[in-house]
Amino acid sequence: MEYSNGPVCIKDLERIASKVMPSGAWGYYDSGANDEQTKLDNMTAFDKYRLHPRMLRDVSNISTATTILGQPVPTPLGVAPCAMHKLAHADGELATSRAASQHGGVMILSTYSTTSLEKVIAQGNSNMQYWMQLYVYKERSVSEQIVRRAERAGFKALVLTVDAPALGRRLVDARNKFNPPAHLHLENFIDPEIVNNPDGYGADLSKSASETFGATFGANGDQSLSWENGIAWLKSITKLPIIVKGILTAEDTRLAIKYGCAGVIVSNHGGRQLDGTLASIDALPQVVEAAGDKIEVYMDGGIRKGTDIFKALALGARAVFVARPVLWGLAYNGEAGAKHALDLLQSELELTMMLSGTRTIGEIDDSYILEPESRWVQS
Amino acid sequence: MEYSNGPVCIKDLERIASKVMPSGAWGYYDSGANDEQTKLDNMTAFDKYRLHPRMLRDVSNISTATTILGQPVPTPLGVAPCAMHKLAHADGELATSRAASQHGGVMILSTYSTTSLEKVIAQGNSNMQYWMQLYVYKERSVSEQIVRRAERAGFKALVLTVDAPALGRRLVDARNKFNPPAHLHLENFIDPEIVNNPDGYGADLSKSASETFGATFGANGDQSLSWENGIAWLKSITKLPIIVKGILTAEDTRLAIKYGCAGVIVSNHGGRQLDGTLASIDALPQVVEAAGDKIEVYMDGGIRKGTDIFKALALGARAVFVARPVLWGLAYNGEAGAKHALDLLQSELELTMMLSGTRTIGEIDDSYILEPESRWVQS
Amino acid sequence: MEYSNGPVCIKDLERIASKVMPSGAWGYYDSGANDEQTKLDNMTAFDKYRLHPRMLRDVSNISTATTILGQPVPTPLGVAPCAMHKLAHADGELATSRAASQHGGVMILSTYSTTSLEKVIAQGNSNMQYWMQLYVYKERSVSEQIVRRAERAGFKALVLTVDAPALGRRLVDARNKFNPPAHLHLENFIDPEIVNNPDGYGADLSKSASETFGATFGANGDQSLSWENGIAWLKSITKLPIIVKGILTAEDTRLAIKYGCAGVIVSNHGGRQLDGTLASIDALPQVVEAAGDKIEVYMDGGIRKGTDIFKALALGARAVFVARPVLWGLAYNGEAGAKHALDLLQSELELTMMLSGTRTIGEIDDSYILEPESRWVQS
Amino acid sequence: MEYSNGPVCIKDLERIASKVMPSGAWGYYDSGANDEQTKLDNMTAFDKYRLHPRMLRDVSNISTATTILGQPVPTPLGVAPCAMHKLAHADGELATSRAASQHGGVMILSTYSTTSLEKVIAQGNSNMQYWMQLYVYKERSVSEQIVRRAERAGFKALVLTVDAPALGRRLVDARNKFNPPAHLHLENFIDPEIVNNPDGYGADLSKSASETFGATFGANGDQSLSWENGIAWLKSITKLPIIVKGILTAEDTRLAIKYGCAGVIVSNHGGRQLDGTLASIDALPQVVEAAGDKIEVYMDGGIRKGTDIFKALALGARAVFVARPVLWGLAYNGEAGAKHALDLLQSELELTMMLSGTRTIGEIDDSYILEPESRWVQS
Ligand SMILES: Cc1cc2nc3c(=O)[nH]c(=O)nc-3n(C[C@H](O)[C@H](O)[C@H](O)COP(=O)(O)O)c2cc1C
Ligand SMILES: Cc1cc2nc3c(=O)[nH]c(=O)nc-3n(C[C@H](O)[C@H](O)[C@H](O)COP(=O)(O)O)c2cc1C
Ligand SMILES: Cc1cc2nc3c(=O)[nH]c(=O)nc-3n(C[C@H](O)[C@H](O)[C@H](O)COP(=O)(O)O)c2cc1C
Ligand SMILES: Cc1cc2nc3c(=O)[nH]c(=O)nc-3n(C[C@H](O)[C@H](O)[C@H](O)COP(=O)(O)O)c2cc1C
Repeated sequence: MEYSNGPVCIKDLERIASKVMPSGAWGYYDSGANDEQTKLDNMTAFDKYRLHPRMLRDVSNISTATTILGQPVPTPLGVAPCAMHKLAHADGELATSRAASQHGGVMILSTYSTTSLEKVIAQGNSNMQYWMQLYVYKERSVSEQIVRRAERAGFKALVLTVDAPALGRRLVDARNKFNPPAHLHLENFIDPEIVNNPDGYGADLSKSASETFGATFGANGDQSLSWENGIAWLKSITKLPIIVKGILTAEDTRLAIKYGCAGVIVSNHGGRQLDGTLASIDALPQVVEAAGDKIEVYMDGGIRKGTDIFKALALGARAVFVARPVLWGLAYNGEAGAKHALDLLQSELELTMMLSGTRTIGEIDDSYILEPESRWVQS
Repeated sequence: MEYSNGPVCIKDLERIASKVMPSGAWGYYDSGANDEQTKLDNMTAFDKYRLHPRMLRDVSNISTATTILGQPVPTPLGVAPCAMHKLAHADGELATSRAASQHGGVMILSTYSTTSLEKVIAQGNSNMQYWMQLYVYKERSVSEQIVRRAERAGFKALVLTVDAPALGRRLVDARNKFNPPAHLHLENFIDPEIVNNPDGYGADLSKSASETFGATFGANGDQSLSWENGIAWLKSITKLPIIVKGILTAEDTRLAIKYGCAGVIVSNHGGRQLDGTLASIDALPQVVEAAGDKIEVYMDGGIRKGTDIFKALALGARAVFVARPVLWGLAYNGEAGAKHALDLLQSELELTMMLSGTRTIGEIDDSYILEPESRWVQS
Repeated sequence: MEYSNGPVCIKDLERIASKVMPSGAWGYYDSGANDEQTKLDNMTAFDKYRLHPRMLRDVSNISTATTILGQPVPTPLGVAPCAMHKLAHADGELATSRAASQHGGVMILSTYSTTSLEKVIAQGNSNMQYWMQLYVYKERSVSEQIVRRAERAGFKALVLTVDAPALGRRLVDARNKFNPPAHLHLENFIDPEIVNNPDGYGADLSKSASETFGATFGANGDQSLSWENGIAWLKSITKLPIIVKGILTAEDTRLAIKYGCAGVIVSNHGGRQLDGTLASIDALPQVVEAAGDKIEVYMDGGIRKGTDIFKALALGARAVFVARPVLWGLAYNGEAGAKHALDLLQSELELTMMLSGTRTIGEIDDSYILEPESRWVQS
Repeated sequence: MEYSNGPVCIKDLERIASKVMPSGAWGYYDSGANDEQTKLDNMTAFDKYRLHPRMLRDVSNISTATTILGQPVPTPLGVAPCAMHKLAHADGELATSRAASQHGGVMILSTYSTTSLEKVIAQGNSNMQYWMQLYVYKERSVSEQIVRRAERAGFKALVLTVDAPALGRRLVDARNKFNPPAHLHLENFIDPEIVNNPDGYGADLSKSASETFGATFGANGDQSLSWENGIAWLKSITKLPIIVKGILTAEDTRLAIKYGCAGVIVSNHGGRQLDGTLASIDALPQVVEAAGDKIEVYMDGGIRKGTDIFKALALGARAVFVARPVLWGLAYNGEAGAKHALDLLQSELELTMMLSGTRTIGEIDDSYILEPESRWVQS
């Protein structure tokens, strides 16, 4: 009866992180919008779906390998984009990138990383794909400059986050009046071209993460962004595949297909934006159905166990992403901690596959899952 | 990451009010009837309905403007009628009226206000509509006198509360043997014509709120009031539109249409009258369906967040009203506190619109909402 | 705002009784079988059903009068049979009978009363009906003797309890090793004819309640009792209407009709016999449907509020019975306490009628109630 | 009002065992996999099913006798296979076997017993059937040797556990780093033929249970086991009926029929293997339906009360097995404690039969049970 040492599950990492992190930063990582219904539902909604396992199959060799955007990866488990990993650990996104690359798969880097995109991708290897997460600013040249740098650095896709035309109302941050510590910088904005932009988007080393965030997301985020002026514009400036993050409906999935996106991430931003939407796992089936085989569907939100990943794959996700679990791992023990988080999830996924009689990711379909008869309906 | 100062959500105001108010008055404001199933369900029933938000729409200019009874108002959020605002703050209904008028929309004044209707409406402006809430007394001339004064003062509609032929059984008040403090007067009854009425309805300054309430609602409320003898009579004495408050069924909605009412307020009196009815939000759809486009449907009960307002509008309410949130704001900080309550709700509504891709009140319909498949049924 | 003095609801009486009664006797009154699922569900199941109230009806004169077994009674609220009222108060069933007769309706007396049936009925008046509850013993002459005395004393019906061929397993009593105090006697068994019976059923004043209970229910209850040998036999020895208590299914209701019973009481014995049955209120509709207009259907179990009575009537019960609430009232304050319990329930029923727009018991039907769409089904 | 002495229900035994056992051993007995959803659901899922009892039937003579694998047994209640009974009490499986044989029915012995199979079966009598539980090892001769010995000793069937190609992830054991105490031996492996096996499967008295478990289950369990290479092989080496333990689906039930098994045990291993499957009782109906009258269906998981047994029988199980309740009884008081556990369950089953009007096991069918309308569905 052997087990890995250290924290034995993701919830252990959460408990540890809640103790070792300063309360403001912890609050920022942890909080969801308003009453946190969606944040919590993201996790508990998985319980509704039950496994329907098959026995007496040869499970002596199982594999989690799959393809994403047409390229092979060793696992469908990736890292979701999160702002400011240095709030968790001084090594920040460098540590996360190293942990992820030992493990393989996709890492999505947040525009609001505290390490520049070039340094982050430099930790990668052939098992990894890096994707660059974007917001679009009133001054489009700022967004364009980030796209150009991501292309040059070798990012494989652009992830446009569409669920945040304004920041969600997170009561914990409001109570804490949280601002990131002054020594943290949003390094992607320390860029000559951006710094020179007259509207003050840019950041040099004298600007804190907080100031840059305010100047970009707060004051200069483009709230008029639309399918027409957003996706079409992005496609006009880059050849990278475009993935839309924050889709919760079949309707928007059909628009993503129409506007030529390569994939959608079913996500409610970890319950941090609009409180009261469906849990990601509950929204997934309708998106999968609308996507058909035209675009790839990924999901994030509430993944905390191997069975959660298995259920998302069974309901049609091609890959899943985790945000807070990796941040908790980082807070616990930097690179090793982030790797520990991914190791736990990966090994739990493998055990789930063995115990349910599935040997490849391709085999995992909805015949391995049961759901309660009642569903959410549109009237 | 900027937020308004002070309490960050309506529940904060509730907590503060529960501490600063005397326990008897707090109990009176807070309590529902019997086991408070309906009072609590009014709030939690909203959780069942989920938002179905749309992305990538231009939300740089959103507006909450709408029309009520044919007249434009800047917001569908109004103030429900509540007895005795001076229990919360010495400035009472004057403070509420000033707060509401900075904000615009509809304020419904309770017959049992501790400030006379003339003084309350004097705080208004062109962004505001005032409606007068009525009970009907055995001696109809008393009710008529209030109607006449409301007409003269400029009230735009009469709101007949029909869910209270007898007072609901509120256990907290029974335990506290609550009576309002002797220095409070129900000022609408300090009226020469009413005072002179032989049955002792009236109040002069020597009569406490408690005595007046007992003499009118308790002893002289007309329990024989019916569609025939109530609505028809009211229409015979006034040209003001009549709105019936306390409707929970399609059947009564059809009667409201038949008897020529201008609108109905779906309400269970904040759970203070008959415990065990549906939550207001759960009763709303059947009333909306019965109303068609013949009369306007409003609702109150349990609104505590911007998403609650959004859900009520999506299910067909033309406007919503809040009672306790405003009283809590008053208790917290008089006029500024009442305004803070309305500001929180208004800004949360606007954020909900942005995050769900709706730009006008007219756009908010049931395509933005999901409900659990099972509904309440009649056998 | 006037309320009756003293405890303001039935739950207050429960709390008081739990404090003033010796723990063994309290445990005996309170406990349900095994895990008490049914005992608790009896109460909470009412919450599922919601009121669908109608407004603007003349409710200035409401009446709770009805007929039971063809005779007028002032209220559909009656007293269920309970063993040993003297565990609650020295005045025992005399106090209960006096309280009930001030109030009117039906009182069912338990065979295992600590006051003789003749003394109990002597407290009655023309507003009252007394019914005698029976168990059938191996030695049928013992049961027959009780029937004869009930007939002579003026009881109007016999209530055969059929859900107790063996005593339910009540863990609290098992832990307490509860036995009634030695000075209490099951007075119906202090009867020359019974005492002389060779099998030792009878009790003289030297026999405690505990001994008599063991000698009758425990050792000599007739576990072979059936529709054929039970109901047919009873009909052969008496002309009194026979009511079967403890029916939970449509199937048995049809048998009750077939065997000529006058009514059935939907009951699970307050959750004290078979744990895991439906709550009484959930079992009621199928019994009502099977009964049609052929026999009367009553119910007991979990009635604690006026709205509970209203819901049972709306679902088709002709009358309802309460057990523990009356015992709690007795424990609180003897006759006055039992009356207080009945007064609370009666006045709450009247208020419910006013607030839901029903003026007579006849008007209360299932149009005043809503239920959740999902029901219990047989596979 | 007589009750058996001592603990009055299975939960009492659980509480006692949790106190008297060392925390590591208690953790091993108690724990389920991961978040223990399935472990807990195994018990609470029974609450959903409700009894539909029939009254007025002659229940003076009831019998729990039935047949299993064609042979009469006095009760459908048996003992599930559990590793290492000596963790609970020094008398271990000998005590369990003696307790079970006083009671009759089926006892399934775990391969990982701390008493040799020959000694365990020696306690039996003609009321008993012993079945031998198996795992299959890479080195098939080891499994074959156990089969041979079971045949010789008189075991009546082989139970192949199929839900454990790898050990479930039990967080409590991981935290405790639990290993059985060094003085315990897995006695079935102290076998000359096994000891001599070159891969080190065997155990002599110098090898602890922990070492043997690691050498067999951990390192040498055959993860490639399948219907083809597992069941077909087993049938080729023995004439004993083969029962597959750990089936949760109709699909696998059909395969069990196809491959010539005599029965299936619906089980999720007490929630210790794959967390997130259905509770056993919820999975039972679909297996029963697929089984038809071709093979026998048994179940284990969460049985704690007589009504649980009754519900499983009503839903189609031919027999049920209990694991933890017997272990708790053992921990409480060795043989007498294990017998107390079985006595409680047996007498509660009999009482349930009396109170629901069923006199034989054959009479118990789904007409005595109700279920909520919504079921688990495959999409
Ligand atoms: C602290 C934090 C920061 C985040 N920052 C971003 C971000 O910069 N861009 C983005 O698209 N999503 C961001 N997200 C959302 C995540 O990408 C992801 O959608 C969500 O957190 C997944 O849910 P999980 O945390 O339950 O795994 C952030 C989430 C957290 C918790
Ligand atoms: C303290 C208090 C006093 C009230 N007084 C009146 C009143 O005088 N007339 C009336 O029609 N409704 C009255 N109501 C009911 C409200 O108008 C409204 O229907 C209800 O409170 C809305 O629910 P909410 O409190 O959850 O917002 C009162 C409610 C409260 C809480
Ligand atoms: C202490 C006690 C004693 C009872 N004794 C009897 C009895 O002797 N005969 C009988 O038919 N029912 C008896 N019952 C059951 C009641 O008549 C009734 O079915 C049930 O308690 C109603 O539920 P309630 O207590 O929730 O009102 C007894 C119930 C209690 C609580
Ligand atoms: C401590 C323990 C050890 C077990 N060992 C085995 C085993 O060796 N072989 C096996 O097939 N099942 C084993 N099981 C599973 C049981 O046979 C059974 O499926 C399950 O525990 C039944 O659930 P219950 O504990 O709720 O009665 C074990 C269960 C427990 C609790």
